[in-house]
Amino acid sequence: MITRIDHIGIACRDLDASIDFYRRTYGFEVFHQEVNEEQGVKEAMLRISGTDDGGSSYLQLLEPIRPDSAIAKYLAKNGEGVHHVAFGTADVRAETAAATDAGVRALYPEPRRGTSGSTINFLHPKDCQGILTELVQSAEATPEH
Amino acid sequence: MITRIDHIGIACRDLDASIDFYRRTYGFEVFHQEVNEEQGVKEAMLRISGTDDGGSSYLQLLEPIRPDSAIAKYLAKNGEGVHHVAFGTADVRAETAAATDAGVRALYPEPRRGTSGSTINFLHPKDCQGILTELVQSAEATPEH
Repeated sequence: MITRIDHIGIACRDLDASIDFYRRTYGFEVFHQEVNEEQGVKEAMLRISGTDDGGSSYLQLLEPIRPDSAIAKYLAKNGEGVHHVAFGTADVRAETAAATDAGVRALYPEPRRGTSGSTINFLHPKDCQGILTELVQSAEATPEH
Repeated sequence: MITRIDHIGIACRDLDASIDFYRRTYGFEVFHQEVNEEQGVKEAMLRISGTDDGGSSYLQLLEPIRPDSAIAKYLAKNGEGVHHVAFGTADVRAETAAATDAGVRALYPEPRRGTSGSTINFLHPKDCQGILTELVQSAEATPEH
């Protein structure tokens, strides 16, 4: 079951400049920063609100650290903007299986590590009405089964 | 002050097909539907969760009802996908003024009517790192001043 919009993933060319933009314009602050070598990004999570499943909603700002990363390719093709939408769930495996049963392809055969020790998978944008969709299980979330 | 991700606005060619996709894939249900003649769209709000400001986060599915609507132009150029990101606030005028003070252009000189009697403005995507950004004050939200 999907229980929140976990985050909106935003491709940016300069992470520090984007953090500065969101601080100046809306007062958003950095909740967490990390480098994800596997995904080829450095990133900042800006927490926007809590959600009634006990989680939170964030903006995730993503700057590529390698020219072959998915974010670098996105920027070269589209420029800065919304890269993906991430839904939060207590069980990323079950949610991925449900999507697959509905005819939607997952990008990974097994979930991978996401931000802050979360477990994630992605659903193919061509199967999701043009939207690259991430499924996120927080590190602290307990599987339902 | 921004207190939630109010919704993610998604451009779609066929509203009923999109509603069906989100129901089949994730189990999301329609919370509200309406036609907004001024914006040139018919739309469905899918409620994803409550937020800790007393509001909710939604997906907003948007199908154009006129070829000159912003959504029709977006679809012609980009195909289906994320059209805009909307932040919730208790005071859309104050939040628009704060963004303007930070050098971000608003699309309307005065707020207009959004979904479910809300009051909205948009911020220019060229000033928002490529993202068309909506500010939303719910119908029931009381201005802070």
